Amino acid sequence: MMRTPPAKPGDRLDNVDTPALIVDLDALEHNLDRMQEIADAAGVVLRPHAKTHKCPTIGGWQVTRGAVGQCCQKTEEAERLVEGGVEDVYVSNEVVGATKLARLAKLARHANISVCVDDARNVADLSTAASKAGSTLDVLVELEVGGGRCGVRNPQAAADLAIEITGAPALRFAGLHVYNGSIQHARTRAERLAAGHVLQHKVGETLEALSGKGLECPRITGTGTGSFREDIEVGCLNELQCGSYVFMDADYGRNLGGGDAPISDFRQSLFVLATVMSKPEPGLAVLDAGLKALAFDSGPPLIDTSPGLTYLAASDEHGEISGAPESLPTWGSKILLVPGHCDPTVNLHDHYVGVRNGVVEKVWAIAARGAGT
Amino acid sequence: MMRTPPAKPGDRLDNVDTPALIVDLDALEHNLDRMQEIADAAGVVLRPHAKTHKCPTIGGWQVTRGAVGQCCQKTEEAERLVEGGVEDVYVSNEVVGATKLARLAKLARHANISVCVDDARNVADLSTAASKAGSTLDVLVELEVGGGRCGVRNPQAAADLAIEITGAPALRFAGLHVYNGSIQHARTRAERLAAGHVLQHKVGETLEALSGKGLECPRITGTGTGSFREDIEVGCLNELQCGSYVFMDADYGRNLGGGDAPISDFRQSLFVLATVMSKPEPGLAVLDAGLKALAFDSGPPLIDTSPGLTYLAASDEHGEISGAPESLPTWGSKILLVPGHCDPTVNLHDHYVGVRNGVVEKVWAIAARGAGT
Repeated sequence: MMRTPPAKPGDRLDNVDTPALIVDLDALEHNLDRMQEIADAAGVVLRPHAKTHKCPTIGGWQVTRGAVGQCCQKTEEAERLVEGGVEDVYVSNEVVGATKLARLAKLARHANISVCVDDARNVADLSTAASKAGSTLDVLVELEVGGGRCGVRNPQAAADLAIEITGAPALRFAGLHVYNGSIQHARTRAERLAAGHVLQHKVGETLEALSGKGLECPRITGTGTGSFREDIEVGCLNELQCGSYVFMDADYGRNLGGGDAPISDFRQSLFVLATVMSKPEPGLAVLDAGLKALAFDSGPPLIDTSPGLTYLAASDEHGEISGAPESLPTWGSKILLVPGHCDPTVNLHDHYVGVRNGVVEKVWAIAARGAGT
Repeated sequence: MMRTPPAKPGDRLDNVDTPALIVDLDALEHNLDRMQEIADAAGVVLRPHAKTHKCPTIGGWQVTRGAVGQCCQKTEEAERLVEGGVEDVYVSNEVVGATKLARLAKLARHANISVCVDDARNVADLSTAASKAGSTLDVLVELEVGGGRCGVRNPQAAADLAIEITGAPALRFAGLHVYNGSIQHARTRAERLAAGHVLQHKVGETLEALSGKGLECPRITGTGTGSFREDIEVGCLNELQCGSYVFMDADYGRNLGGGDAPISDFRQSLFVLATVMSKPEPGLAVLDAGLKALAFDSGPPLIDTSPGLTYLAASDEHGEISGAPESLPTWGSKILLVPGHCDPTVNLHDHYVGVRNGVVEKVWAIAARGAGT
């Protein structure tokens, strides 16, 4: 079911229907340029994560600037990215189940596809699927490095799994996946640097274990928008997976750099535009954007231009804003919200409305929105 | 962008791709029948809320059983419902902004459309839009009855607004909207009954104020799956808006009836099917369903058939399940989750997979998913 876009090119921002997902194109382009500069300066490959933007159009802009391809988390996201012209896609996640594996293996006939594993049964299933499809899959071993989620737990297990991959028809061992999601929102540089040293140590031991089995490790891939500075500094990755930097969000905005100073590399480019649909009593304004327009897992949105106002409470289709009566927006007016968490907020919308200087320049589909299988 | 359905009729539940939104058709039909029986026995009209199912197919099943039409919250939802064959749609919410009002007024040329207001400026804008479209809108006054969100705050203001409506071209005063969202999840019958008495008192005063101005009040509409029993008992509504009863969820399951006994009128019919994609250490299983497949605003999902297991933590595409190692599901197996909150969970999916006796009987689109404007 194709949704009606909330705007068309040439519309003024004030005339965009709400709730709408707004992208500040100047800020987005700044962010895309800046991250590629950082990767280039560090001498590492950038493979941005499409789990944030879910959109081959933005993926294409990243590749044009020098990215090697895209990461994603789901087979269906990979399908949308390849359909949209991305030629090198890494599903940085385990893909389990015959239906998904058949699709992934088929996709590898049309693009370079890599995927990660943490279980020998999955290696066998991937090999069967790729052999059947007549394709080859690059397979990385996921090594747990602090997140406590997926991934083999020790270097020896990683090396054993790498051997399984090298012995399996239609698979190539492509490297190590080492992502620590839990450190991305650690506020201080000291915490993130400590996690970087743990990562470095565990990767070092694993490279030794691989070497002991005569295996080279082409890719060592990981990190995110929160921890890439420290992970570059400890120097054990050759591929960066950062995704959220394209948009940023309220929660990433709370991370601090050296000396606990704010970090200014990236600008907030993602917003939700909402309308004040009710002002029923002094000190309260009700917006038309709640749980179905914004993600709340990392806290409520911020109110872009009015830090004195608070997004107090969300229900399914409403948001309550409190503040001094004279500072509240007027009935019927529109305001921009900074989402608490960018990825799941994007997943609630079907279109990006790209704005520059207050005018809509481009409206485009979020092709992999909801692509969850 | 049309998503690929995760199953087709005839598939076994075990072969449905994941994550998928599963509907137990026996339980759904039981719920549809039961609520219509309850409304009939109480002598009140049932107008179920489509904000839960977002689907004219299910809306049609409700109308076939005796419902007068549907409620929804958004203009775009109303458009999808009318396109899908529903002939009487109430947008039980304020609609603000010229674009939306023009669409709503146009829709009223093809179906009976009603909407609620809490501001005289909105009455004027609705009248302008309906006059321009050559249609007539039924307009209800929203009276705040405890939720503290939208709605005029006192009976006199409600009566004044009703007079505005009766004086406005192309509008008809259709009644009072009195919904208290905050009481739906109050656990005890005593709390909900107390709220019902507050509702009764405020509605009584408002009917007097309307009568004092010579106005009749055709519809008094409100309540939800949590509080309808008590609101029927106090007897001040003639139209029920319950929506969540079609599916139920973990949070509604925690409401208690008389003597603090569990309530058994409705069965859980909505589930998310997930795959165990990693078992990296004893006591931990990682599922492929996280923030992008389930809503967490009312708590994590329950694990349907294994109450000893806990859905511990969600990230964007993962869910971590903890429990005794021997009770955890096996690697690659699939399990059913009971969503914490049904409405925003439905909003993350594009298809219902209807299952009976372990076999997929019907797969159909959630036509108004994401219809937020």
